[in-house]
Amino acid sequence: MASAFDTLNERIRDVADLRHAADLVEWDERVCMPNGGAPTHGEMQGTVRRLAHEKFTAAEVGDLLGRAQDELRSADPDARDARLLAVTARDYRKATQVPAAYVAEHAHVVSAAQHAWGDARQANDFAAFQPHLEKVIALKRQYVGFFPGSVHPYDVLLDDYEPGMTTADVQAVFDVVRPKQVALLKAIAARPAVDDAVLRQPFPESTLLQFSVEVASAFGFDWTRGRQDKSTHPFATAIGCDDVRITTRFMDRYPLSLLFGTLHETGHALYEQGVGRAHHRTQLEGGASLGVHESQSRLWENLVGRSRPFWEHFYPLLQARLPEPLRGVSLDHFYRAINKVEPSLIRVEADEATYNLHVMLRVELEIALVEGRLDAAGLPAAWNRLMEEYLGVRPPDDASGVLQDIHWSAGLLGYFATYTLGNLISAQLWERFGAAHPARDADIGRGDFSTLLSWLRSEVHEHGRMFEPQELVRRATGSPVDPAPYLRYLEGKFGEIYGL
Amino acid sequence: MASAFDTLNERIRDVADLRHAADLVEWDERVCMPNGGAPTHGEMQGTVRRLAHEKFTAAEVGDLLGRAQDELRSADPDARDARLLAVTARDYRKATQVPAAYVAEHAHVVSAAQHAWGDARQANDFAAFQPHLEKVIALKRQYVGFFPGSVHPYDVLLDDYEPGMTTADVQAVFDVVRPKQVALLKAIAARPAVDDAVLRQPFPESTLLQFSVEVASAFGFDWTRGRQDKSTHPFATAIGCDDVRITTRFMDRYPLSLLFGTLHETGHALYEQGVGRAHHRTQLEGGASLGVHESQSRLWENLVGRSRPFWEHFYPLLQARLPEPLRGVSLDHFYRAINKVEPSLIRVEADEATYNLHVMLRVELEIALVEGRLDAAGLPAAWNRLMEEYLGVRPPDDASGVLQDIHWSAGLLGYFATYTLGNLISAQLWERFGAAHPARDADIGRGDFSTLLSWLRSEVHEHGRMFEPQELVRRATGSPVDPAPYLRYLEGKFGEIYGL
Repeated sequence: MASAFDTLNERIRDVADLRHAADLVEWDERVCMPNGGAPTHGEMQGTVRRLAHEKFTAAEVGDLLGRAQDELRSADPDARDARLLAVTARDYRKATQVPAAYVAEHAHVVSAAQHAWGDARQANDFAAFQPHLEKVIALKRQYVGFFPGSVHPYDVLLDDYEPGMTTADVQAVFDVVRPKQVALLKAIAARPAVDDAVLRQPFPESTLLQFSVEVASAFGFDWTRGRQDKSTHPFATAIGCDDVRITTRFMDRYPLSLLFGTLHETGHALYEQGVGRAHHRTQLEGGASLGVHESQSRLWENLVGRSRPFWEHFYPLLQARLPEPLRGVSLDHFYRAINKVEPSLIRVEADEATYNLHVMLRVELEIALVEGRLDAAGLPAAWNRLMEEYLGVRPPDDASGVLQDIHWSAGLLGYFATYTLGNLISAQLWERFGAAHPARDADIGRGDFSTLLSWLRSEVHEHGRMFEPQELVRRATGSPVDPAPYLRYLEGKFGEIYGL
Repeated sequence: MASAFDTLNERIRDVADLRHAADLVEWDERVCMPNGGAPTHGEMQGTVRRLAHEKFTAAEVGDLLGRAQDELRSADPDARDARLLAVTARDYRKATQVPAAYVAEHAHVVSAAQHAWGDARQANDFAAFQPHLEKVIALKRQYVGFFPGSVHPYDVLLDDYEPGMTTADVQAVFDVVRPKQVALLKAIAARPAVDDAVLRQPFPESTLLQFSVEVASAFGFDWTRGRQDKSTHPFATAIGCDDVRITTRFMDRYPLSLLFGTLHETGHALYEQGVGRAHHRTQLEGGASLGVHESQSRLWENLVGRSRPFWEHFYPLLQARLPEPLRGVSLDHFYRAINKVEPSLIRVEADEATYNLHVMLRVELEIALVEGRLDAAGLPAAWNRLMEEYLGVRPPDDASGVLQDIHWSAGLLGYFATYTLGNLISAQLWERFGAAHPARDADIGRGDFSTLLSWLRSEVHEHGRMFEPQELVRRATGSPVDPAPYLRYLEGKFGEIYGL
């Protein structure tokens, strides 16, 4: 007779297949779908996701979980089966704690809110978005109520993206990062600006695309298990570990974003392609958290892709492809241009030295909203005050201020912190890898990324969702999430560039 | 309280969404999927199709059908709701008559058989495929047993592709077509061969692709509700009526097949785009049968796309695009070249005057296999004998004979007849439309297809699966499937080309 554990896993495989199908439908929607297909795609998406949820939250799954826990009672809690069962039980508990009526209302509210947000941003009219945002915030506070016993209400929201991470953890880390990064920015602002006019030239899209593909290949992207396309907003999606897709886009305004966007998404994709095959079609497939995922994308985009050793190898190749725009531009000039620091209004265009400040501002506002210390009406003023305080710039309007991100309209409160956690973790991994492999920079300078990738594979990728992020980071680096390596990295890199 | 009929329709919408998702996964597999994703796609495909089947065949659906039949007892049987209910009940009856264990075994056997067929064809080794074919035939005979009461066992297989059509119907029609088409072919063979060397020149793929898209647009393909891609074998797929996708391919050996293939798939796509929106997410969505579907693809590919009026409009445009290969080639020369008749070994390369003979040979062999008059071991000899009899050519080996088609290895017995039924129906529609619209050829000669398309829309497309093929054809043309118009068409067209 099959064990309850085996029967449970068989059930979950159906759920995983439905999720894969829904993810593929979503990819198609963003890459292939003709416009007229939108309603049909919405129907498919809704039905397939609903059925996956129904199958996962069925009472029978709860029964099987209970019986499987009895079966594995004496197993080593760190062994793979025990971890799989624990993670499945955690996910089941969370999924069943939220009433179906709430899920339906949430879907309804955020659908309208996203639409209103798009219009409001276009019209620079926060007041038109405010009632929608109020509904979203009310729903989030209601959501918190489904999980009694959390120390801080925001813990509940964070936990959906960063399992096990608390508001106190995040605040402790951010309180260290913020003043140091504000001080660094002030020091940089006092130095002569870097000239990056060279990057604003007309680079041909096809050349950059081919070059990006070559770099992604050098990083180790497996094209037999993945592909790249164009889309309005770059993203990565995994239909399991064997079909991992990335997208990119071309912007006349900043052509090289095609390259850096590709490297970023390649980082996400390398993670998914590296998840252990044993986790396929279980609750352990995919990345440990959004923060850990972001650590991989930022590591390949910035710590590798905006480093001097990387360009020592790749700059001559790029120059050969783009002789006109890069004629007479030295490696040092190019390196400084792609690392120019400049406080700006828009998060997604921010450089490494300012990005976290955009994030911390949002997290601070979110916590205040969830605690009830701030309401939607007070957001624009609070936003502008913090922009001034952290970045020294003040948005001329709400469109380039509080209305710039889609996240809140989509109900994604608790999400932003993961961007900065990703940066911090990327530097922890980077430093640890460098300590263990002194040839790190020399290897990269030769275009050899194999040691780095196989270290990330064994320390991070292959575990999938086996460990919560704090534990994963501790196992890989010897410490939980720690801001010191990232601050050392920033101060070292920009200290050299700006002669601080 | 919701009626049983409404509740039933709500249930079916979930089934339709799952089928749409499975169809999209299949499209992706053939167009986008990286090779490594094949196992994951197989899992998704299997699970989503199984869940669609489970949901459709659930006992509750049977209960709802019974109660809805009570509710609609006094409705006009031709009204839309009554037709919907009748078709849903028919589909339910058929789907529930086949045991799940059979479906699983069938999937298993044809998966192995298709693999073995690929190898056997490659190696020209029928004996290696024979045991697999024997299993497929045994399964088909077992399948027939699930539907007691059919007049002829082959009726059961036919009915899956051509609802309501019987073996006697098909044989009566084929018995008229076969001798006439054999005689026509003999008469053509006695005339000087047409010179089609002009078609074997190197036409650039991109030019043909662009030209094909222009013709498809002129036919009325709606690109806001569809797209075209490349794939190994051309096909059309519909994710409902608002997302209809076609594919094409380029072959150096016969470049214009890209164009004719596109016109063929556009015919299928126009049908799907024209299915009434009221049928969306019901058992009435999609085409009435494979034969009716093929009538649309063959009509646009051949009756329009290989006609003289069509090329009177489009030949100057093609010549302007391809001045080198078509320099000095007259319209008449080109028209005769694309309509060259030549008995050949391979069905998919057959011209209009020989295609049906390939089909009828297969149908005759299938009926003998199902009746038990022929066994797998006897197939190659029987195949070669009929090729000689119908087409006057004898395959030099089984790879270009009995092993050429994938259908039998895929379990698709009963399918081939639909190709010829499609040809016959296309000519019936064509003749009827011409009688009602005497300007038919003049319109086409001006590149105007709007009257033709709107006639097909109202006579065929918009009904979806409301009527069985014989009834649909009778409603549109005044007669059930009838071979006379197609024979008149063939004799007229090739009589003129070959001076018979």
